[in-house]
Amino acid sequence: MNRAQLIAHIRQRESFLCVGLDTDPNKLPAGMSMLDFNKAIIDATRDLCVAYKPNVAFYECHGPEGWRILEETVRYIGNEHFIIADAKRGDIGNTSDYYAKTFFSSMPCDSVTVAPYMGRDSVEPFLQYPDKWAIVLALTSNPGADDFELLTQDGKPLYQQVLTKVSQWGTPDNTMFVVGATRPTMFEDIRAIVPHHFLLVPGVGAQGGSLSEVCKYGMNEDIGLLINASRSILYASSGSDFAQAARLEAQRMQEEMKALIA
Amino acid sequence: MNRAQLIAHIRQRESFLCVGLDTDPNKLPAGMSMLDFNKAIIDATRDLCVAYKPNVAFYECHGPEGWRILEETVRYIGNEHFIIADAKRGDIGNTSDYYAKTFFSSMPCDSVTVAPYMGRDSVEPFLQYPDKWAIVLALTSNPGADDFELLTQDGKPLYQQVLTKVSQWGTPDNTMFVVGATRPTMFEDIRAIVPHHFLLVPGVGAQGGSLSEVCKYGMNEDIGLLINASRSILYASSGSDFAQAARLEAQRMQEEMKALIA
Repeated sequence: MNRAQLIAHIRQRESFLCVGLDTDPNKLPAGMSMLDFNKAIIDATRDLCVAYKPNVAFYECHGPEGWRILEETVRYIGNEHFIIADAKRGDIGNTSDYYAKTFFSSMPCDSVTVAPYMGRDSVEPFLQYPDKWAIVLALTSNPGADDFELLTQDGKPLYQQVLTKVSQWGTPDNTMFVVGATRPTMFEDIRAIVPHHFLLVPGVGAQGGSLSEVCKYGMNEDIGLLINASRSILYASSGSDFAQAARLEAQRMQEEMKALIA
Repeated sequence: MNRAQLIAHIRQRESFLCVGLDTDPNKLPAGMSMLDFNKAIIDATRDLCVAYKPNVAFYECHGPEGWRILEETVRYIGNEHFIIADAKRGDIGNTSDYYAKTFFSSMPCDSVTVAPYMGRDSVEPFLQYPDKWAIVLALTSNPGADDFELLTQDGKPLYQQVLTKVSQWGTPDNTMFVVGATRPTMFEDIRAIVPHHFLLVPGVGAQGGSLSEVCKYGMNEDIGLLINASRSILYASSGSDFAQAARLEAQRMQEEMKALIA
């Protein structure tokens, strides 16, 4: 999916919601399979969101069967939503080539989350596919972000060094950044460095970030945000009404987004 | 495998060689399966090395079938060698839990390579399993290492900040670091920070690093090094004699190691 198509979906659905598919068998209604759960969540939220983000760890821990469920989930989503393989990959060039192939050729994902630590040759293989995207970690929403991302490096925090360098390797048409919602005022500094890039924003919902604060400081001329919610939608109810409850929570967020776009 | 067992294998085999299983179907003898190739390489090198390192990217790009080959390869290696899942994982705490479960519970690996960018809660889940190890990226052997790892951060290069902080989260009994062979003199600075940790060293062989230089600056009282070679062993011959050729190359390295230990 290219940038123009993504923006068109956002405008049409009045939503920049990404539903995170962190599917945990221990949290599903009794007797329900991961794949059936995912399909029900997707059917209940299709018109309310523009992106789905399967968290690869939750699938690969089930071995070959988990990998099959991931592939079938991605295929079930189809091509009207932006698909993010949340895999945090990154390795030397010839290995990153294989990771890119995994998610872009073997599976029809639109994007992969990528860890920047190993530098340019670890990111560039993800930028070689037309209409596919690298979503590079910049400032994450977890407590450990303080350990390295916020350390000052040559006068700037590491995450700003990452934004500055990585934005030169690709373009706003093939690169996004992960920026957590838990430090919303930092979006001002971030937008000074990458005014046009889309940002994938976890941390609204279960982690406590504020949607309106993120939008106040982070929105750009094309919206420029994909706001992820995982647990707050997937597990809005633990009963047999989980899909309706997921829809209600997604709808609540979509209506808040619609008001913020207007 | 615990530290004492690893050291005993090194002393007994007079080797600290790790064979990297970066198995590429396009480089195998005609008609040979990935699994049969891996088994032949393992059988040809068992007595000459102490560790095997499957590069997970090369397996997961083949989907569920690739994942099955990875599992069968790990089981075939058995428990007389230290098994490294070279996966470069790392995510927020609850997701890293799943990655740790993947490689330590679902599969009998001894260790996983971990990217440090997201900080403490992304690494700690890998330190919760007895006799299992996190091998954290510090200074890698690829050109992109210059981009962030070598940037000066609060007066020290980022990779030294990583060594300093991460070594406080675990111990030399459950934490190793990746340090590439391509900058051997930097091992002096590294040993000043982590004198007792084992280091996993890629970059000898195809990438041009020198084994004797690495040992000169990097060896400690327990050897403290695992030297990886992948392509130079796996593809020493492209013909039907690939296993014998792999053994000869592994033997050449083991003999060099034996002389350096003495």
